[in-house]
Amino acid sequence: MNSLNRLTEKANQQAIDRIQSSRVYLTELSQAKDKTSFFDGYSLMHSGPPVEWENMTTAMRNAVCGAIVYERWAESLSDAFDMAEKGLIRFGSDNENNAVGPMAGIVSPSMPVFVFENQVFGNKAYVTINEGLGKTLRFGANDESVINRLTWIENTLAPILKESLMLSGPIDITSIIAQGLQRGDECHNRNKASNNLFVNQIAPWMVRCNYSREDISQALTFMAGNDHFFLNLSMGNSKATMDTIHNIEYCSVVSCMSTNGYHLGIQVSGTGRQWFTAPSPYAKGNYFEGYDEADASTVMGDSYISEACGIGAFAMGAALGIGQFIGINTKQAQDYSLEMYDITISEHELFKIPTFDFKGTPLGIDIRKVISSGRLPVINTGIANKRPGVGQIGAGIVYPPIDCFRKAYEAYMAQSSCVSTEDKGALVT
Amino acid sequence: MNSLNRLTEKANQQAIDRIQSSRVYLTELSQAKDKTSFFDGYSLMHSGPPVEWENMTTAMRNAVCGAIVYERWAESLSDAFDMAEKGLIRFGSDNENNAVGPMAGIVSPSMPVFVFENQVFGNKAYVTINEGLGKTLRFGANDESVINRLTWIENTLAPILKESLMLSGPIDITSIIAQGLQRGDECHNRNKASNNLFVNQIAPWMVRCNYSREDISQALTFMAGNDHFFLNLSMGNSKATMDTIHNIEYCSVVSCMSTNGYHLGIQVSGTGRQWFTAPSPYAKGNYFEGYDEADASTVMGDSYISEACGIGAFAMGAALGIGQFIGINTKQAQDYSLEMYDITISEHELFKIPTFDFKGTPLGIDIRKVISSGRLPVINTGIANKRPGVGQIGAGIVYPPIDCFRKAYEAYMAQSSCVSTEDKGALVT
Repeated sequence: MNSLNRLTEKANQQAIDRIQSSRVYLTELSQAKDKTSFFDGYSLMHSGPPVEWENMTTAMRNAVCGAIVYERWAESLSDAFDMAEKGLIRFGSDNENNAVGPMAGIVSPSMPVFVFENQVFGNKAYVTINEGLGKTLRFGANDESVINRLTWIENTLAPILKESLMLSGPIDITSIIAQGLQRGDECHNRNKASNNLFVNQIAPWMVRCNYSREDISQALTFMAGNDHFFLNLSMGNSKATMDTIHNIEYCSVVSCMSTNGYHLGIQVSGTGRQWFTAPSPYAKGNYFEGYDEADASTVMGDSYISEACGIGAFAMGAALGIGQFIGINTKQAQDYSLEMYDITISEHELFKIPTFDFKGTPLGIDIRKVISSGRLPVINTGIANKRPGVGQIGAGIVYPPIDCFRKAYEAYMAQSSCVSTEDKGALVT
Repeated sequence: MNSLNRLTEKANQQAIDRIQSSRVYLTELSQAKDKTSFFDGYSLMHSGPPVEWENMTTAMRNAVCGAIVYERWAESLSDAFDMAEKGLIRFGSDNENNAVGPMAGIVSPSMPVFVFENQVFGNKAYVTINEGLGKTLRFGANDESVINRLTWIENTLAPILKESLMLSGPIDITSIIAQGLQRGDECHNRNKASNNLFVNQIAPWMVRCNYSREDISQALTFMAGNDHFFLNLSMGNSKATMDTIHNIEYCSVVSCMSTNGYHLGIQVSGTGRQWFTAPSPYAKGNYFEGYDEADASTVMGDSYISEACGIGAFAMGAALGIGQFIGINTKQAQDYSLEMYDITISEHELFKIPTFDFKGTPLGIDIRKVISSGRLPVINTGIANKRPGVGQIGAGIVYPPIDCFRKAYEAYMAQSSCVSTEDKGALVT
């Protein structure tokens, strides 16, 4: 083993130790503007690496316009569009501000956010509240029903959850994911059992909140009826976990994967917060009645951090029921997960796959292994319509472009100059 | 094929059609005495075939004494014991009164019961509310904490659930079981996800009930914190389903399996409500810390109707996580289910096993196949302490005695005299 590889093995072990020992709790409900210094005037955060209005997909642009109307910065969607066209909106990446968001991932200052704390390392993460399936802002829908729901979330659901969390104390999200994987979830695109588990934990506290029974009942109905409500909680766990491994020198473990629909970017621990990007791909998927591939937008979302954290498509062997949602069969679901052991360096100690005899999920994507094997991390994903205002039209499987990993590997290799030049020729183990 | 077998094939198909088309809803909460004409004065129902005080296990006797104190027929457990010894208590079998109960299965007149309706066939079934794990009446515990919990169930939990059900309307229990099997449950000894699902469905209605928030919150905490709360709902589904196949002439499908700790009995469709019994066996199991086989009671309970209905141990391939609870590994859990296809005649159309590529669970135990193969139906079960007042000490696997099936087969064969005597020599297909 050459010098860089030796340093990398040690660094990678440190990264894995941090991930394995992380324990993320949902600690409070707050408002986005109170939790990040990013917001100042007309400013919005989005999923993926930084992207400007000019390069945003139609779906993300529609989500931006919806958020502008929701914030009352403009009265109509067309006024909102004009504001953005004139460059009046400042944009920033969720991931660069301790946040993550599914699909378009738009976070506006007034939006309520779940606050997650990694109780081992002390770092925090922020995620908005999931709006449900179908016609939602994150999928680029922005009509009155979407804005009204966001307003209800802000004025009714969030305050109830805020008070409930004050009563209940922190809720262990890592533990719910671990249990969810024993109950057919992979906690990216299948969150059914985990969501039920979360609702079971918080419901007794919601009842005690100082809000009307009607409001509490509606809040419970919304949460219990939205299988993906837990997705945003799962993402908070992944973000607060993976944020602990940035900047471990020589570490070749992927710390983040994310896409804004224009570019998909990955980050690698050893190279810090640098994005390695390539054009966002399309998913291969299962489309809802009446839609097909021609309707699809390129993939969007910060939720791909799930796979970096050893869940999502990496754990589909635990979630065979996801097959019909994303258009794969039982064997494929298991094979997708099995293949990921080839490009990862550990097995999760808490997240276990029952059908693999309770083997831990494949954990820690090593860019060296991706490059040497040519095997890419598999991700499952929602699919948005490329046209305005429709929302989700399917779900499927996608691979990040190999170019992201090539660029990351080049940057990783560049570190070798600081180590020992003569070993450069044989860096891949 | 001889005449009896021909008639049996047709009869069995009819039985399977009834089971497959059954759809059981939880429709209301009531009190046991209002739902069965059995109760009159000092009278109690119990699990298994009929059994008198003299032959009851210590665990069942303790449950009886607890129920007597709960009903205030006696002031102390020793007075209760004396009442039973003097023959003042009339006993009857749950199963013979449209009811089922786990373990000792004691139903007393004041106990609240869930009312289930098979909405296809119109028949009803009654099951008490599950008390939780550990020290409970059904496991033969009967101290003050047990009686107090029963009283709280009667005075607080049941009225809340009663009103909730009036608000929510009937809840589809068959559907929850079908979903539970996709989430790692087998709905006999593993009910985690199904229970969460049920709580998610009823919680929004509980909030609207005319009871204090404190009471509703405690009710939710109790239900959400008791993984086996759903067991009694699952049993209601099995009972209201299997009660549709009694007395189909020549039918060789097992309609009921149940044990009172003294005798285990089975019923077969074609021979109606006749019990075929043999001494209750011991389970082979996984014991809680501090207990072992020497502490175990013989097996008890009406919940073995689960396996007759194609769930429980027959569906353990869907519930690999049950392994550590009952002391088996992943392969065994799958093998137990797989073996049951040998002695059943159909696959459940709604209850699917993900790890078997969504094959339906083995359904319809055919006593002819049991006799010809020598393979017995596998059942998973809770294990009670044989000593007074301890409660559950483990869980495991048990097989009903072959003698039950031999006797049933003899009775089945006796029907052949009504068919065609010359075929008698070759009745087993």
